[in-house]
Amino acid sequence: MEIICVGNELLIGKTLNTNANWLGRQATNLGVNVKRVTVVQDIVDEIADAICEARERKPHFIVTTGGLGPTFDDKTLEGIAKALNRKLEINERALAMVKVRYAEYAKTRHVPETEITPARAKMATLPEKTEPMNNPVGTAPGVRVDLRGTVLFALPGVPSEMEAIFTETIVPLLKRVVGDRVFREKSMFVDNMMESRLAPLIDKVMSANKGVYIKSHPMAAENKPHIEIHLTVSAKDEEKPMETIIKAMKQLAVLVEQNDGVAIVET
Amino acid sequence: MEIICVGNELLIGKTLNTNANWLGRQATNLGVNVKRVTVVQDIVDEIADAICEARERKPHFIVTTGGLGPTFDDKTLEGIAKALNRKLEINERALAMVKVRYAEYAKTRHVPETEITPARAKMATLPEKTEPMNNPVGTAPGVRVDLRGTVLFALPGVPSEMEAIFTETIVPLLKRVVGDRVFREKSMFVDNMMESRLAPLIDKVMSANKGVYIKSHPMAAENKPHIEIHLTVSAKDEEKPMETIIKAMKQLAVLVEQNDGVAIVET
Repeated sequence: MEIICVGNELLIGKTLNTNANWLGRQATNLGVNVKRVTVVQDIVDEIADAICEARERKPHFIVTTGGLGPTFDDKTLEGIAKALNRKLEINERALAMVKVRYAEYAKTRHVPETEITPARAKMATLPEKTEPMNNPVGTAPGVRVDLRGTVLFALPGVPSEMEAIFTETIVPLLKRVVGDRVFREKSMFVDNMMESRLAPLIDKVMSANKGVYIKSHPMAAENKPHIEIHLTVSAKDEEKPMETIIKAMKQLAVLVEQNDGVAIVET
Repeated sequence: MEIICVGNELLIGKTLNTNANWLGRQATNLGVNVKRVTVVQDIVDEIADAICEARERKPHFIVTTGGLGPTFDDKTLEGIAKALNRKLEINERALAMVKVRYAEYAKTRHVPETEITPARAKMATLPEKTEPMNNPVGTAPGVRVDLRGTVLFALPGVPSEMEAIFTETIVPLLKRVVGDRVFREKSMFVDNMMESRLAPLIDKVMSANKGVYIKSHPMAAENKPHIEIHLTVSAKDEEKPMETIIKAMKQLAVLVEQNDGVAIVET
């Protein structure tokens, strides 16, 4: 999977990219390998370029976030249309979804506002031959595009809406594609051993435990070592990946202690 | 500027990408336009591809974060070497920097550990014809590579080290290149008006105030509107960009109130 996040606010450091983090976590937990995140400006050509480049790498899935709303700077649908060389047109199913939302809002507000203004019609103006996805908690529908070898999903940037559409519509599909592959992880900590001393020990344990990926994350300076060791496995559930992780973790703990480090392992 | 962040932990949702956020904020405040952030795995080919792709877009600066440390999964220097088709070799200046650090550490630890092990030499093994940058708070030096039209900076992933090298060595250079261009911003809030109603008002104010970029950020659902309006200008200081922002903000506030919305402007 690749993730493309659209939004100047992410590039100017106004907003932390929690969407990419959340999507990465969800997809990984489902056994999907997230290979790249790209963040681009609210510029049609930039969005289109990022989509074309991602497509060339042939991921099973591309998920975009942001740029589906009613304002001038919501340009993701235009970017997708440009990338795929498709026209934008009112999508009747999307328009029906938008109308239902505004009819609901009208009931809860003093002034009924059901009129489909140009800004509202924009949220239902999709590239041709695409499918809207129900937005259970907001107005702008998500969009699904089936391409050769890749499914592209466009999600809104508001986290609650992005999460709701992903959970309702995309998770079931990912589960079907991924099958029984699972992702398992566990952390241990090492004190009193510099990362540069730890490096060859990690190499040894990884060589002896195929499939286990071990990454060290220094939590303090090299000379006052407190290091998180994060062990991960992506495998079939029947291969008992957590047992594999625990075996590797115990081996590393022994090596650390033999080298005068302190290994902190929660079991 | 483009930012390339290297690290599986960012893609699997283990770690929030605060480095990209911090760099985006710093660069923007200096008047530098951050056009793209790319996050890739700890895989040499992925890093090399991201660097080659960024170079083709000819940014003035590319900043990478992560992958400079002593462990097997620190692969950014190898990725840069591959992207530039250069050999990796011990850089004597970098080696001297690393040695100084371990000599310092030895003074503060029970067991003197000044030996330059392979894992430590790795941090001084740079692509040929590159320049190490002093790391004031950690071990791995940063790396500077001057390319045709682009300067590439490789920074560590540990936030305190990344920030220290950026501040000490890169900020002065950016200031020289950017000159007297500044970035100014201000937020106002709009209640009681749906984003879809606000959209045409923003269009009007942007047309009337060239150079002001206005972006709306819904902070709640469309039917219970509370929207942050973020106004930004990048201009020369003598053009008084903050005055431009305030003028546009006042115009938008008037339009909002005329349309039964509530504009909240802090002055």
